Amino acid sequence: MSYADYVNRLSKLADIAYTGAVLNWDMETYMPPKSAERRSQQLATLSGLAHEQFTSEETGVLLEKLNTDESLDARQRANVKHTLKQYRKGKKYTTVFVEEMSRTISETFNAWQEAKQKNDFSIYAPKLEKLIALKKKECELIGYETHPYDAMLDEYEPGLKTADVDKLFNDVRSELVPFVKQLLEQKIGSQEIIHRFYPKDAQIAFSEKILKEMGYDFDAGRQDISMHPFTTNFSATDVRVTTRVDENNISDCLTGSIHEGGHALYEQGIPDDQYGLPSGEYCSLAIHESQSRLWENNVGRSIEFWSGQFPELKQAFPETLKDVNVNQFYNALNVVQPSLIRINADEVTYHFHVMIRFEVEKAIFENRIQVSEIPAYWNARYKEYLGIEVPSDAEGCMQDVHWSHGSFGYFPTYSLGSFYAAQMFFAAEKAIPGLKDQISRKNYSELLKWLRANIHQHGKTYSARELCVRSTGEELNFRYFMNYVKAKYAGNV
Amino acid sequence: MSYADYVNRLSKLADIAYTGAVLNWDMETYMPPKSAERRSQQLATLSGLAHEQFTSEETGVLLEKLNTDESLDARQRANVKHTLKQYRKGKKYTTVFVEEMSRTISETFNAWQEAKQKNDFSIYAPKLEKLIALKKKECELIGYETHPYDAMLDEYEPGLKTADVDKLFNDVRSELVPFVKQLLEQKIGSQEIIHRFYPKDAQIAFSEKILKEMGYDFDAGRQDISMHPFTTNFSATDVRVTTRVDENNISDCLTGSIHEGGHALYEQGIPDDQYGLPSGEYCSLAIHESQSRLWENNVGRSIEFWSGQFPELKQAFPETLKDVNVNQFYNALNVVQPSLIRINADEVTYHFHVMIRFEVEKAIFENRIQVSEIPAYWNARYKEYLGIEVPSDAEGCMQDVHWSHGSFGYFPTYSLGSFYAAQMFFAAEKAIPGLKDQISRKNYSELLKWLRANIHQHGKTYSARELCVRSTGEELNFRYFMNYVKAKYAGNV
Repeated sequence: MSYADYVNRLSKLADIAYTGAVLNWDMETYMPPKSAERRSQQLATLSGLAHEQFTSEETGVLLEKLNTDESLDARQRANVKHTLKQYRKGKKYTTVFVEEMSRTISETFNAWQEAKQKNDFSIYAPKLEKLIALKKKECELIGYETHPYDAMLDEYEPGLKTADVDKLFNDVRSELVPFVKQLLEQKIGSQEIIHRFYPKDAQIAFSEKILKEMGYDFDAGRQDISMHPFTTNFSATDVRVTTRVDENNISDCLTGSIHEGGHALYEQGIPDDQYGLPSGEYCSLAIHESQSRLWENNVGRSIEFWSGQFPELKQAFPETLKDVNVNQFYNALNVVQPSLIRINADEVTYHFHVMIRFEVEKAIFENRIQVSEIPAYWNARYKEYLGIEVPSDAEGCMQDVHWSHGSFGYFPTYSLGSFYAAQMFFAAEKAIPGLKDQISRKNYSELLKWLRANIHQHGKTYSARELCVRSTGEELNFRYFMNYVKAKYAGNV
Repeated sequence: MSYADYVNRLSKLADIAYTGAVLNWDMETYMPPKSAERRSQQLATLSGLAHEQFTSEETGVLLEKLNTDESLDARQRANVKHTLKQYRKGKKYTTVFVEEMSRTISETFNAWQEAKQKNDFSIYAPKLEKLIALKKKECELIGYETHPYDAMLDEYEPGLKTADVDKLFNDVRSELVPFVKQLLEQKIGSQEIIHRFYPKDAQIAFSEKILKEMGYDFDAGRQDISMHPFTTNFSATDVRVTTRVDENNISDCLTGSIHEGGHALYEQGIPDDQYGLPSGEYCSLAIHESQSRLWENNVGRSIEFWSGQFPELKQAFPETLKDVNVNQFYNALNVVQPSLIRINADEVTYHFHVMIRFEVEKAIFENRIQVSEIPAYWNARYKEYLGIEVPSDAEGCMQDVHWSHGSFGYFPTYSLGSFYAAQMFFAAEKAIPGLKDQISRKNYSELLKWLRANIHQHGKTYSARELCVRSTGEELNFRYFMNYVKAKYAGNV
């Protein structure tokens, strides 16, 4: 048994895992409603199978042997180490548990879709309750040192602890609260331009034009519509994004597509010859999110970006935008204002949404609140942090898909991603002379090249911390984000 | 171990098989081109896994035990018998062979798509050659009594022999040749109306309207576009059809959708509680095809059908059809004329297309021709049978998807399906007073009810022969088809 056997085995395991991803993509885009139950079952079977194959004794023997193989190079050693960690973790689960989790997730997802559409939390609650009970059981299975929620965080951001997030969010809060207060005292801009009528087909066409210009390869991907936008991949040569379209809010589709495009560029930039190996997988979710938010915010909400894009946007929506200039559009897209919906939030108040979810999740995993208490708890936090009333659960605690996917511990990576993004964009600006000029000329290729070289190509070979130090020269530092928003909004308000 | 264990096991096996079907559906509808290679590999892994799970010793022990279980009812016994037959057949394959076959099929399919688009047989030939070599090896693996091609036929139509098809096609030829000659001597109608301009979106909308009226449940299915139309299902609650659209040939989409709709009604009518079991699977391919062709031809090309539908068709294409009445449209849709493309052929000359494929396949499996000789051999047969020159391989031997799927022995079921359809429609007419009147009033529900009761609900519980006798009172009799076309075209020419 050799490293080649390991590569071959992981390739087959990836085939099974990506097959599940195709089923999920289909479930969220095209699957007819009556298929939901059977699909849940099919996904459960597939998860069970993947688990069985991965945690087989053969895999274990192979990994233990390779783990002491001195002839491997650094990347190979890192791969084996990662897989062995996953293997040991995997062994803690039974196949029955894996299948039950998968089935419960699909059922909860389908309940969430219906509940959100009908604005009826009671459709969602019983499934969510079952899922949370399973997730709590999972925390105990995996084990943790101090806080059960640590086990959830580790799944998305290896090594991240509840206490780390607490500390970071305290810093964020202490800086952001006075900053937002100051901004709001000065002036709240108008978003009227964003909420004009933008025909659906033209929005999709424009978003695909931007994706192409960003460097997204449509021969190795596609864009479809889903309730909640997402990126998924079945290899580096099949990386798909979804978007959503509101004809009275161009920001949904526009910033949504750019955001998912950032995720997709990452996946398309991972070396295909590392298929199935840790070196062929994204580093961590916060790093993934750094890519989406760098494109969405640092690029896609910048005045330089719109200097380049606005003339064509105006051509695409000549009636809607006939009385609008680029500065007015840019300002409307960057209004700082407390709001209900996380994915529509501005770059500054966005983090309050994440902090709220973190608090709700912590309360759940500390057994301080029951599922039935989530809406009230949620609404109270929105009142406290953002000063707004939540008019409905569809726009409140049911707005996001994540819990229905069983993704607890995921949200903090969104804020981390933003902070990484600011730091990486700062490093890219230093490394690429005239980057902002390039962006204003719709030339994004140097930036993509930098991201490919510094982030994308490495997969999981380095940890998030290592990758950050290698690409920016220091560990994650929240200061870059604060400097970025202060500079941006000081000129804007 | 009990029948319940068997049901559970087969349900999981079906989950894996249907997962492969989702991957295939995606491959033929939405998959981006660069994904082809990885998808081939993913499908191969899944096929290998399905094979391993199905042919495990555990399955064998369970089946042998249940096969002598006297407490089972008739349907349960039939299920076990079928599965045991499949199991014994499955044991003849190695996992390596199954994976290689799967990979080769996907590769051949992708080569075929490109080759057809570029009209370049040389892109297709090397893959097809590899695939045919594997199929020949498969014949030897499975075994046969007299002719290697019997092993291929048996996969689609259990028990059907090359000699049976030879005999049937001799009868067909001896009746159809003089009949077509007589028709062509009288008059060749004009298809000009069919080839007018019909906008794409309106065609799709009209085809979906008809599908709904036929009883196709869009909550348990959907229609998409593919190069070659097909029906696939991932359960009885997720049965998808595809169609294709040529804005200068309304027949493609229209008759294509009705044809696939017939297949889909069959799958939607199979009892969902028999999921994964033989009683939850279609009887045979010829029976499947009887359903599609009954709807496409006996219903969808009848004057009664168009009496009901034509007023709305005219509304959907007011400019195109402003000078056309229902009889003119009906006649244009039913012109008998030798033609190049099987799926566009009229109901009579259609069978020459099938006979040609049968001859080519026989020649291949008798090692009388090489892959490189297929185009010339094909073209010579078209000259001989239909009196026409084949201008390009794209419209010649590359017109159909089947070989690229490894589906040799499949085509004869198309003719058998037509003959079954004529016989079943005759029986339905006897059983349903005023059926043709109902059809002319766009009421297809009694017909569907008859098909559900007599065909759909039984799955594989009865053989094709038994099902035919039960539903029509006698074995398959080619006379019903001849009587049907004679009556139809006697009035038409």
